[in-house]
Amino acid sequence: MSNENMLSNSDQPLVGVVMGSRSDWPTMKLASDLLSQMGIPHETKVVSAHRTPDRLVEYAKSAKSRGLKVIIAGAGGAAHLPGMIASMTIVPVLGVPVKSKALSGVDSLYSIVQMPKGIPVGTLAIGDAGAANAGLLAAAIVAGHSEDVAEKLEAFRQAQTDAVVETVED
Amino acid sequence: MSNENMLSNSDQPLVGVVMGSRSDWPTMKLASDLLSQMGIPHETKVVSAHRTPDRLVEYAKSAKSRGLKVIIAGAGGAAHLPGMIASMTIVPVLGVPVKSKALSGVDSLYSIVQMPKGIPVGTLAIGDAGAANAGLLAAAIVAGHSEDVAEKLEAFRQAQTDAVVETVED
Amino acid sequence: MSNENMLSNSDQPLVGVVMGSRSDWPTMKLASDLLSQMGIPHETKVVSAHRTPDRLVEYAKSAKSRGLKVIIAGAGGAAHLPGMIASMTIVPVLGVPVKSKALSGVDSLYSIVQMPKGIPVGTLAIGDAGAANAGLLAAAIVAGHSEDVAEKLEAFRQAQTDAVVETVED
Amino acid sequence: MSNENMLSNSDQPLVGVVMGSRSDWPTMKLASDLLSQMGIPHETKVVSAHRTPDRLVEYAKSAKSRGLKVIIAGAGGAAHLPGMIASMTIVPVLGVPVKSKALSGVDSLYSIVQMPKGIPVGTLAIGDAGAANAGLLAAAIVAGHSEDVAEKLEAFRQAQTDAVVETVED
Amino acid sequence: MSNENMLSNSDQPLVGVVMGSRSDWPTMKLASDLLSQMGIPHETKVVSAHRTPDRLVEYAKSAKSRGLKVIIAGAGGAAHLPGMIASMTIVPVLGVPVKSKALSGVDSLYSIVQMPKGIPVGTLAIGDAGAANAGLLAAAIVAGHSEDVAEKLEAFRQAQTDAVVETVED
Amino acid sequence: MSNENMLSNSDQPLVGVVMGSRSDWPTMKLASDLLSQMGIPHETKVVSAHRTPDRLVEYAKSAKSRGLKVIIAGAGGAAHLPGMIASMTIVPVLGVPVKSKALSGVDSLYSIVQMPKGIPVGTLAIGDAGAANAGLLAAAIVAGHSEDVAEKLEAFRQAQTDAVVETVED
Amino acid sequence: MSNENMLSNSDQPLVGVVMGSRSDWPTMKLASDLLSQMGIPHETKVVSAHRTPDRLVEYAKSAKSRGLKVIIAGAGGAAHLPGMIASMTIVPVLGVPVKSKALSGVDSLYSIVQMPKGIPVGTLAIGDAGAANAGLLAAAIVAGHSEDVAEKLEAFRQAQTDAVVETVED
Amino acid sequence: MSNENMLSNSDQPLVGVVMGSRSDWPTMKLASDLLSQMGIPHETKVVSAHRTPDRLVEYAKSAKSRGLKVIIAGAGGAAHLPGMIASMTIVPVLGVPVKSKALSGVDSLYSIVQMPKGIPVGTLAIGDAGAANAGLLAAAIVAGHSEDVAEKLEAFRQAQTDAVVETVED
Repeated sequence: MSNENMLSNSDQPLVGVVMGSRSDWPTMKLASDLLSQMGIPHETKVVSAHRTPDRLVEYAKSAKSRGLKVIIAGAGGAAHLPGMIASMTIVPVLGVPVKSKALSGVDSLYSIVQMPKGIPVGTLAIGDAGAANAGLLAAAIVAGHSEDVAEKLEAFRQAQTDAVVETVED
Repeated sequence: MSNENMLSNSDQPLVGVVMGSRSDWPTMKLASDLLSQMGIPHETKVVSAHRTPDRLVEYAKSAKSRGLKVIIAGAGGAAHLPGMIASMTIVPVLGVPVKSKALSGVDSLYSIVQMPKGIPVGTLAIGDAGAANAGLLAAAIVAGHSEDVAEKLEAFRQAQTDAVVETVED
Repeated sequence: MSNENMLSNSDQPLVGVVMGSRSDWPTMKLASDLLSQMGIPHETKVVSAHRTPDRLVEYAKSAKSRGLKVIIAGAGGAAHLPGMIASMTIVPVLGVPVKSKALSGVDSLYSIVQMPKGIPVGTLAIGDAGAANAGLLAAAIVAGHSEDVAEKLEAFRQAQTDAVVETVED
Repeated sequence: MSNENMLSNSDQPLVGVVMGSRSDWPTMKLASDLLSQMGIPHETKVVSAHRTPDRLVEYAKSAKSRGLKVIIAGAGGAAHLPGMIASMTIVPVLGVPVKSKALSGVDSLYSIVQMPKGIPVGTLAIGDAGAANAGLLAAAIVAGHSEDVAEKLEAFRQAQTDAVVETVED
Repeated sequence: MSNENMLSNSDQPLVGVVMGSRSDWPTMKLASDLLSQMGIPHETKVVSAHRTPDRLVEYAKSAKSRGLKVIIAGAGGAAHLPGMIASMTIVPVLGVPVKSKALSGVDSLYSIVQMPKGIPVGTLAIGDAGAANAGLLAAAIVAGHSEDVAEKLEAFRQAQTDAVVETVED
Repeated sequence: MSNENMLSNSDQPLVGVVMGSRSDWPTMKLASDLLSQMGIPHETKVVSAHRTPDRLVEYAKSAKSRGLKVIIAGAGGAAHLPGMIASMTIVPVLGVPVKSKALSGVDSLYSIVQMPKGIPVGTLAIGDAGAANAGLLAAAIVAGHSEDVAEKLEAFRQAQTDAVVETVED
Repeated sequence: MSNENMLSNSDQPLVGVVMGSRSDWPTMKLASDLLSQMGIPHETKVVSAHRTPDRLVEYAKSAKSRGLKVIIAGAGGAAHLPGMIASMTIVPVLGVPVKSKALSGVDSLYSIVQMPKGIPVGTLAIGDAGAANAGLLAAAIVAGHSEDVAEKLEAFRQAQTDAVVETVED
Repeated sequence: MSNENMLSNSDQPLVGVVMGSRSDWPTMKLASDLLSQMGIPHETKVVSAHRTPDRLVEYAKSAKSRGLKVIIAGAGGAAHLPGMIASMTIVPVLGVPVKSKALSGVDSLYSIVQMPKGIPVGTLAIGDAGAANAGLLAAAIVAGHSEDVAEKLEAFRQAQTDAVVETVED
């Protein structure tokens, strides 16, 4: 199957966007939005490492055979979702530390990024910027084998650069 | 079955002491030692949340039916072991944040203690003191229904108090 | 006395929920609510380590003989209440770091969790999640000897799992 | 060009491993070692964002056309290398926060992970574990389009799981 | 060319005030205001290290020949702007860590101040105070060779001292 | 009784130096040494808040009637000793955060300094400097009513100033 | 002069309450209020270490001869006021870290408490609680030689204890 | 007086390198070494803000009239030296946070960098890198009016760039 065909089949998600709680959606939506903007089919689901551990196992173990190329996982506090998914699949996992109430996401960040040798999670910034960037990084990974996505990504970056007006005031 | 009988059956561990890596043993041994001192049958195992997720699931899900009354779980860095066990059993879980190399165990502590509403982990201090105290707290939980252990614990505490000599030098 | 009888006697609290200040109640109420939900008789009191040290001593020293199986203690800032109670009883003590104004509860957390070898406090997350989880962990400890509570806890956990809808939006 | 052919051409590096200083090599070598173990052709270079900014620009801008599928960048302190490379290419960039002297790598971590919306860096753990995991995550990305690497990665993971002996002592 | 002449030529900016994003302007405006107050010609521009890396290179490399005596660069989060400018010019660079959302500017501060040996950035306080002080420090540097600015600065300081009324209430 | 007489009676300690563990002595000795140097009679004792709570109560409650003018209390980790003594006496309490293993004394510092409104502890720096300074501050308090100690303190300060040679090398 | 006479002379302040900026007054007022409540004559002044260094020198050097028994100094951020006063007088100095904007007073705390060996500052909690407690600690120091203040302080403490109602709700 | 003449007069230091304690010299020597390398006459002195406040005042107040163009001040812990010098002169002050024992220089950093609006200190990295960079930044400031120093600085930078060999191993 060629990469371009893969993308043309919109029923087949290439990226999974999962989060530990529905309350993470306002943040994680930015990942989903960027994937849509890049024309990358993806799925969005709530998978709680702590409240739905069976769903977690099932999701992680079926990821590769279901054709996912990247998984984006967002969670807050003692954020175990990204690391636990990563422990059960070789599909690359990107982690988004959701901003937490007491510790502003430092707990989320440490829980996601400080993975032991052997099971990696590519971690993005705390909060909204991190979620958006997870979408972009997933797109960049997909772009490695899709000229179409690569072009969309280049265009996005160029537009982003062009939008940076030099003057500080209107 | 009475509580005292429960304790007399040495083949039946009441407490499980698990850790994410064999390298955590020098720390977690202090939990095991204190349980031995309190005469509480227990088991010690390496269960890695990240490297042996299946073993984790099996261990957590069988804990109650195997008769465990408390689980002590120690791990370092992005320490997911205690929280993930807690997500799959109602047996009380105590977490020991093992001192990590770069962040001295602050990452371990946050990853263990900052559990979301719904799945608790009773967290002890970072490192050796925390491991020893996990043993003591497990003993205190068992003591709630075993006069024998309660007496041993009282004696331990009394001896500990007596050992605090008031003068600062010999 | 059997464990089930113990629970049926509603005049006899099995769990003590104490806090350093009446202003901690909105947080600590979550512990009390969860105990109620589990059908566990409990008491709630303000006991300030610093402003009512005598009450602290009396409370801690009488806890075991009064039949308490677990004590939940919440406090903020230089939070000495959980550790000081633990120093005067072998009843298991669970600590809830209440969110503080300047340091967001990091001071509360360190003051509660970093207990020295010999006197354990099982520490929960900072703030509301920690208080609710303290109630759940206390219930789990009681459940070790009460099938009734164990069943309630299993049901609570199942309901919690069922409530995690997979889709991110209505 | 098929993905397998891509791998068979050993003159063509698929992954670039760069670091801010030669003194980062003992850490970054772990990334390189894992890539070798996975049979992935890669290059290793010192590119200092601060001392060789021109080399940085040249390296980042030529990365895609030279066929790199992933760039792993390690740096310590005010670690600008990963983010600056990411700003000049759409090739996915993985960042490794090298442990720093005064702040143990917290400065490196924050400088790498807290990228603004628009330019992502997939960040790994501080120090050696992070470097090794960057190699593994790069391999996982390559594996998305190479069954050969996917198989090697699965085998690595299986061996890793098998190596976790359950007993704590020999 | 004498220093006084240099100042009299209002078309020639002596200080460049740059920032990573237009959203940094409310903070960085304080630097600009203080420079105006000191009568120092300066320019203000948005130069994003990550979104406009080419503009960054061009700005930094032309700074000296364009006659800039000091560059003030403000940025937030993984703030690479000050350090990257400093890597491409010998004009003294002052860095202003802009307050960030999740980490309150600690990430900005570490990313700016922890520069490696060889490329200095003189870093000011997080946020508004830092921006204002960057303006004052730039003025102090200019004052080293302009009696006019030195006098203005002395007057500013004297007025500042005089404004500190001793009584706490009106 | 005049203040000078008070000092002349060497059997009557004016300052109590207490610590949570004999292992704190190498640090707390510096407080004692400075008090000796200032000619201030004092006592040194191990009083563990957690292991000897009764001794703590007795010590704190008798402090004023025994004539103590200042109490210096040092402890590490979840350091409750200074605050708990302060809760049971109006004698001014100075706290010394002893350097802890995992958190370098940040836990000790927060546990001591973040006292709630109503019960103050005057906190000194972490570790040796803090212990020495506790001795000096106690001396300064005593000096408020003893010309003899005031003179000794002035002399100490003068000698300290004189010892700061201006050149950096011999 | 007897201590009681000292207190009766209301023109002679015994305690100086100083702060780095008039904006610190809402916090520092709590120190002043408690001193008033204890009947201790005191003065309140703005003395900025950075903006009025001469006033600082004059204030510190004249403190002892003007009869001050304690100085309470509050400041925020890079808070140098308490330590610099302490460097120029042997009158005991209590420091109040005022809550700062970006770092919530952690910067203020470290700048005040981490004094080097030789010059002590007795540091209180960050913010309002610290200011109130500085007033109480100053009163406790004065009480060492004034039965009148000691009695007031004992009464305050007793009232404080009595006010802690045991029930959590009305 | 022309700038070049200024440099040719070796009796006239242009930069003052001061430190809070002789023990800071091994760190601060790097600043002095770099100034020597750039051919910039400078002086080195121990000036303790806390132990020699009079020397501090004298040093700061005479700095400008003695011809200093930049002052580099290094100190550790509650590091007040840079800020206090800055409060008494308009000569630009660069601060070097010396690595401290308990807090690794975070206390030094916060005490130096978090100056209030009105009195700037240009702060460098913690420890050796910061000291060396203070020397370089001072040189860059001097270079603003000395072609000779500017050339030396350019050469230093070029040599630094050239020394970054691209290969990671010999």
